[in-house]
This record gives sequence, C-alpha cells and structure tokens, in this order.
Amino acid sequence: MSKKLIDFYELTMAQVDLSNGFENQWQCFDLYFRNDRREGVEQKGYSISAGLSEIIDYIQNLSFSEEELDYLKNNTDLSGKFLKYLRAFKFTGYIYAIPDGTPIFPGEPILTVWAPAPQAKIIETDVLNRFNHACAIATKSKRIVDAAHGRSVMEFGARRAQGDTAAINGAKYAYIAGCTGTSCYGTGLSYNVPLLGTMAHSLVTQFPTEYEAFLAYAREFPNNTVLLVDTYDTLQSGIPNAIRVAKEFLEPMGKRLKGVRLDSGDLAYLSKEARRMLDSEGLNDCKIIASNSLDEYTIENMLLKEEAMIDSFGVGENLITSKASPVFGGVYKLVATSDSENGRVKPKIKVSDDPAKTTVPGRKSLYRFYDKDSGFALGDLVALADEEIPTDNYRLVDHTDPSKYKDLSNYVLRELQVPIFKKGKLVYTVPSIEESREYCRKEFETLYPEIKRFLNPHIYYVDLSVKLAKLKNYMSVKQREKNEKRKAI
Amino acid sequence: MSKKLIDFYELTMAQVDLSNGFENQWQCFDLYFRNDRREGVEQKGYSISAGLSEIIDYIQNLSFSEEELDYLKNNTDLSGKFLKYLRAFKFTGYIYAIPDGTPIFPGEPILTVWAPAPQAKIIETDVLNRFNHACAIATKSKRIVDAAHGRSVMEFGARRAQGDTAAINGAKYAYIAGCTGTSCYGTGLSYNVPLLGTMAHSLVTQFPTEYEAFLAYAREFPNNTVLLVDTYDTLQSGIPNAIRVAKEFLEPMGKRLKGVRLDSGDLAYLSKEARRMLDSEGLNDCKIIASNSLDEYTIENMLLKEEAMIDSFGVGENLITSKASPVFGGVYKLVATSDSENGRVKPKIKVSDDPAKTTVPGRKSLYRFYDKDSGFALGDLVALADEEIPTDNYRLVDHTDPSKYKDLSNYVLRELQVPIFKKGKLVYTVPSIEESREYCRKEFETLYPEIKRFLNPHIYYVDLSVKLAKLKNYMSVKQREKNEKRKAI
Repeated sequence: MSKKLIDFYELTMAQVDLSNGFENQWQCFDLYFRNDRREGVEQKGYSISAGLSEIIDYIQNLSFSEEELDYLKNNTDLSGKFLKYLRAFKFTGYIYAIPDGTPIFPGEPILTVWAPAPQAKIIETDVLNRFNHACAIATKSKRIVDAAHGRSVMEFGARRAQGDTAAINGAKYAYIAGCTGTSCYGTGLSYNVPLLGTMAHSLVTQFPTEYEAFLAYAREFPNNTVLLVDTYDTLQSGIPNAIRVAKEFLEPMGKRLKGVRLDSGDLAYLSKEARRMLDSEGLNDCKIIASNSLDEYTIENMLLKEEAMIDSFGVGENLITSKASPVFGGVYKLVATSDSENGRVKPKIKVSDDPAKTTVPGRKSLYRFYDKDSGFALGDLVALADEEIPTDNYRLVDHTDPSKYKDLSNYVLRELQVPIFKKGKLVYTVPSIEESREYCRKEFETLYPEIKRFLNPHIYYVDLSVKLAKLKNYMSVKQREKNEKRKAI
Repeated sequence: MSKKLIDFYELTMAQVDLSNGFENQWQCFDLYFRNDRREGVEQKGYSISAGLSEIIDYIQNLSFSEEELDYLKNNTDLSGKFLKYLRAFKFTGYIYAIPDGTPIFPGEPILTVWAPAPQAKIIETDVLNRFNHACAIATKSKRIVDAAHGRSVMEFGARRAQGDTAAINGAKYAYIAGCTGTSCYGTGLSYNVPLLGTMAHSLVTQFPTEYEAFLAYAREFPNNTVLLVDTYDTLQSGIPNAIRVAKEFLEPMGKRLKGVRLDSGDLAYLSKEARRMLDSEGLNDCKIIASNSLDEYTIENMLLKEEAMIDSFGVGENLITSKASPVFGGVYKLVATSDSENGRVKPKIKVSDDPAKTTVPGRKSLYRFYDKDSGFALGDLVALADEEIPTDNYRLVDHTDPSKYKDLSNYVLRELQVPIFKKGKLVYTVPSIEESREYCRKEFETLYPEIKRFLNPHIYYVDLSVKLAKLKNYMSVKQREKNEKRKAI
C-alpha cells in the first residue's frame, strides 16, 4: 500500500501548472506556524522541531507506480499529458530546513522549498503532515521530560496512538526529545530506541497469588525485575510481596529488585510510603515508577509540591497524541517565484484581514543569536536570503511590537536552516537518533528558564530584519491597493 | 519496516506464561470502553465502531521474521526458548467482534478474544490501537455528518493528521461514517474512496489575475470546475470572477460551474450573499462549499441559526485528529480463563476502589433490542454467553441505577458480536467499504434522536443480565474479602 500523502488538489493544480507554462517556473514555499495557531498550551513558548528524517525519506522515494497511474486514469479526470508527467516525476529542487531537535518559535521559516511549481505543490501535504505530527509529539515530550527534572520519562502510549505510524514514529520523537525509552516494540525494532516494560494486571491475576506472580516474573527476569504492585492493594499487599521476592528470591542469587510500578491511587502519597517501606528493608536502590494519565502538570506538581518519591514516569495518551493540543498548525505558503532556477526572484505576498495571516514575502534566512559567554539563545532573526547580518552588534526588534528591542553585541550568530536537498540530491547527513537526542538536549539548555515556563512563558524574540519588514509592508500596501481596484471593476 | 504494534511487556509476560504452564491456558479478554473514560464530548452518547478490518489484517499476518528475532536476541533479555516460540507464532484462537459502522456504548464488549494466554496477550496493543484510533475518527465524523443534515461533508485533514496511517485510514473511517469523499490520495488509491479537491490560494496568486487563474482551471477541468473564491475578496472579486468564467467560458461549451469554495471570513454571511449573486445569474446549480476550522457545532449553528446556504463542508483537523477528544479510551481486560479450549470457563474479576474500573467477569454475549414496528434500537443487554434471552418480553434495567427499567415486548433481538476468527482461521467475510458505509447509515437511523444529541444526550440503556449482575456482585465481594485477608497477613 502506498503511504504517499498528497491532497488531490495538488495534482489538479500541478496539471494546471503544466498547461499554463508554469512547469518551469520556480516557486519558494515556507513552512512555518503562526502565532494565532498556538491554541493549545503546547504551542505557547518553545516548540521542538522534528519530522525531517521522514520528510527526507519521502522526497527521496517519491515516484508514481504504474498501478497508481492506472488508478488515476480510471478514477479522476487528470489528463494523459499530466499522467505522463507523473510517470517521470522526480523531485529536482532544493530544500532547506532546521535540524530535528531544535527549539523553534512562531513565524520562523522551519523548512523552505525552492522547486519547479508542480513539484513544490505535490510535496506539500506530506511535508506538512510529517512536520505537524512530529513537532506536536516532540514538543509535548520535551515539556514532560522538562517537568520530570532529570528523572526518567518512558513512553507508554502505543495503544492510544492514532494508528501504527503515530505509535512507532511518535515514540521516536519522544526519545529525541529526551524520553529514556518506549514500550513500543516497533520503535525499538526500527530505530533501536531502548525498549522498556513491566507487566499488566492480568498477569498478576492469572496466578493464584500476587506473590507467586511476582516470583515467576523475577525467576524469568532476575536482572530486570520490575513489579506492578497495585493489582490488589499497593501498600498492604503489592509492596510487601515485592519486598519478599527481593529478600527471599533475588538477594540469595546476588540480585537486586530493580523497581516497582504504581499505576493507580494517589501516586505521590503511595510513592512516599513505598519508599519508606523499601528503604527500611535496605532496598534503597529499588526504583519507583509511576504511571496513570500523567502529563507535565501532574508530574511537576507531584515533584515540587507533594515531594513524591518517584524515580521514573510512564506516560501514555497525553504524550503520544499530544492530547491537550493534538494539532500542530504548520502551514506551507508561497513566498516567491522566479522564471528559472537562477532567475530573478520575485517575492509574493498574500494579505489577509487577519494580520497574523498575511504572509512574509521573499526567500529568507533564519538566524539565532547566542550569547558568546553564557551560550544562551538571545533571539532569532528572519532576514532576506541575500542580507549580510552584522557579526558584532545588532538591534533585535520584537516585530509584533517594534517599540520593544534589545541591543546585542557579544554574540555568536548561527544560521538555523541547513541545506537538505540541492537539485533533488540529498546533501545532508541525517544524524543518528542518538545524535539528534543529544543535540536537542544541548539546544534546549540554551533557552532561558522563563522561555520554558509551561504557563505564560516569556515571549522569545523573533525579529524581522529592517529590509524584510519594509518589503512586507510595501507589498501589503500595494496588494491592498490592487484588491481595492479589483472591487471597483 | 515492521509496523507491528506490541508493547514490550506483552513479550515478557508471554515468556512468563511459557515458563509457568500457562502456554495452554485459554484466556478471554474483552475490549470495551468505560463510562469514566468518556472525557470528551465525543464519547458521550453514541460512538461508532471501526477498525476491525485493520485488526483482521494484523492477526492474519502476525508472525516474527528472523530479523526481528535477531533484534530481540541482541537487545533484550528474552530467553532462547521464548524466541523459539515466537519463531513459530501463529494466532490459533477465537475473536468475536461488532461489525464496523455499528453504534456502540460504554460498558459493551466490542471485541472478545478467546485464545491461549500468550497469544491473547501479544495481540493486545495492536487491537487496542486500531480500535481506539478508528472509533475516535468514525465517531467524530458521524457527529459532523449528522450536523450537516444531509449536506455533503468532505474530509480534508491529511496535513494535520498524526502521521500517514492517521491520514489514510482516518479518511477511510470518515467515509464509512458518512463523509462523501476525501482529499487524501492514499485513501483513494488504497480503498477507492472518492477523491475530492479544489485549489489552493497559491495557484490563484501565481497567475497575474484571479480571473486568469479561474479560467485556466476551468479549461483544464470543465466538468469539475470548483473555484476557490476568497484569495482577494470573496464578494467583490472571487464570486464575480467565478460567474464570469461560468458565463463566458463554461456556458458557451455547454458546461456548468460546479462549485465555489469559501475558506475564510464569515462563512454563513458570505454563503448567503454568494448564493444570491450566483442565483441572479442563473447559476442555481452551482454548489457552495465551505471550509475553515469546522466541526459539528459550527456546522449545526450555521445551518440552523444562521441559515447558511452551504451545500458541502470541507472538514480538516477537527475531524482527522478528533481534536476535541483525540483519545478513545478502549481497554482490554481479562474476564475468564480455562485449562483448555473447551474446558470449564472460570470467570475472572479485577475489583477497584473506583466502581467504574471493576471489570465485568465471564464470557459474554451482547444483544440489541430493536422495536419490531419502528425499527428503533431500544437498548442493549450484556449477558453470559450461555444464557437464553427471552424473545417475547424482557425487563431491561439500567445497571448504573437498577431502579430504572423498561419492559420490552414487541422486539427483535440481535446479537451484535459476530465470529471473526475460529481456531485462528478467518471466518468472517469482511464487508466492502461501501457496504460498511451503508450499514452504518442504516444502523445510525435506528437510534432515537435524543441519543444523537451532541450535548447531554439521553443515556442509552446498557443492561447487565440478572445472572451476570449477580456473578459480578458475588465475585466482587469474594475478591474484596480475599484482598482484606491479604492485608491481614
């Protein structure tokens, strides 16, 4: 089964391109997300970029089989000429993008496509789908990992994910964002993400007693004994039986009880009681794992206010569907055209009555300023692609309120987008998942703590260069004048 | 890449089964969703069952390749004996389930597995994932289709779905639930669901004028000209240009303008104005299509209160992620065991301090009572598998409040679960998607309107038989006594 993601209108529009002399017009599309799309709490503050490796796989393998062409011939009114074009389809353009694991902010070009018009159109839906899904999960995961303050977060959500890809790739994005592993076999198998898991209540109930169930599990996995202790009664039955297995079975073998898992009840209270009971038996190294509808708020609250003694959190549906904010609103908009690959670039704009929806025209570059001493990220700048950015001092203006600015001097400038495809050829070395995870960890550390706040975070500076802001303003005015003239006709 | 959905603990537990004489114990698991899980509005009232055809595909093809066994050998502490078991793995049990497209309610066994213990465990996550995803999308889609009161609803959400499967299968579930088609190419290709689509703003802006863009599109698709009219100004520019194309280009060819699409602004107001303008030019058959963050509430409001003149709705992210309620909380619980396939069945229970979480023990059947004359669904009954249900009269009790009942007499009884697998062999003829869609339409008509209400729907009767309720109560009491004894030790 083809897993191609194309919206049918991309094909009809591409056919219009072919018939109207746009086959060789080059178009530039920016993928970004808007301020006004940040509906859920997850999209306030930072987001984490992800999904690029799936986009690369897709672009590299994008072609149309004879079976697909037959289907289109028999079920649509696409022309023979256009189907012939699809038969030979190959992406021959350029893609620039921000590496997976980078903190990103609204209004920034995350991924930029420069390609012949029909090609740039046909890849839209797949690029958006991969990015939107991946960023939603990576962002939510990073928030949860951040809330755990260095404790381990495990991804447990496969059964609640929206299909197989959502489970398998979702757990990968969670790992890149800092989770320590997943219960999802497919993610272990495909991406070598560490596999984790304990046991279900049904295993405990199928044995005559809880103790016998625990003992059977410990016999089977003496190096990795994690026991689910809430089937009957956590403190009266589960923990005492776990301790008994540790003392009577594991310790005589020279093994230690690795952990206990709490999956119901008042997790903070139970964790403190369980810790006390385990410690009093010398099981200080036994980890306490908690699960049950957790998210960044419950975790932070349990750790900071309730002083829960939890070493590791298993998180399911809230992470794997980004439940509080399941849609990441990335959009893909035309920003420039040219008669040829290297021709003069004409910026394009679409104005809207809603200022947030007016596009930013032109081929652009995105820069991040880091403090030279502390390494903290000071703000980002969106500029036209051919602008020179001063390397010694710069006045960063908040483009949503130009009276707000900060003067930067002691900085290192970094261009965030890197070349991915050139003339259809992959020119990017896709990092390993471990590399992306480490990169994400480091980049996340460059954000000031107030940017990372879950509620009402400090707004990170994303500036438009003076030249770009002028261009946008000039084109908006011109476009509105044109629209007025249209009305008059 | 293997798309298997297995949680790692299913493998460790299955190994424990093998080492402890449970390989040939048969276990019965029920898949159902709980009252207390109906967090989002989508899970109040009815839900629509879906995902069965994916579950069937999975079970039929479930085996472990040498590559997978190597992976497990090198990356986990699963035993050689267990890997040998996996090498020969084949599902040999029974599955019973409710056909896709059936309205379902909390507490009902939707799918029941009867299989050797390790097999029943290993299939859990995939079964839950397919069911949870499919039911979330089918239910949300049915609500939106219902709100449209016979007008067409088109699925447009691929770019916002959580990965490729969520887009491609999601659009299939939407179609089963009554959508008229999808923009998602993969769904057309894989499932022959009708493909729909218009154009994007970028196509309009790449032409010198809106009129030229419309004309180019009409030339290319004269039988299927649907024009996006809001790029510049819907009423001052878009509609007049669409009319001009209809009159100056299409009509002289003997063709009609098929439709216009509104994608921003006040859709109800614009639709009424557009309708007036189109009608005054004799374009009464030109359809008005609306899109932009729609869901069942906005659609119902526009149609009922604002008298919008919209013929067709394009719905994206709210449908394809079931955004207001992205998790459908299906669970999979052990309810019975036996020493062998045909041995005496011992019911199992798990009690909980939260009464909604106490399981209903035993192998069960699920019945629906339909009024013999009107065909309306009167209520459902969960009974033990070996019970005889009277066919002439029955007192249906609301098991959440046993003082509420209704006496039924003039009814037809239907068993909702049908056999899917027997001894591992598929015994079910999977309906075509068109058949499931038609079945869903008919079954939905059997629900009383007050059950279909979006907010605070009337609660549909789901009864437990007297025998089953007694068994549950008896076992709960026994289990709690046992738990108390455990504490005393």
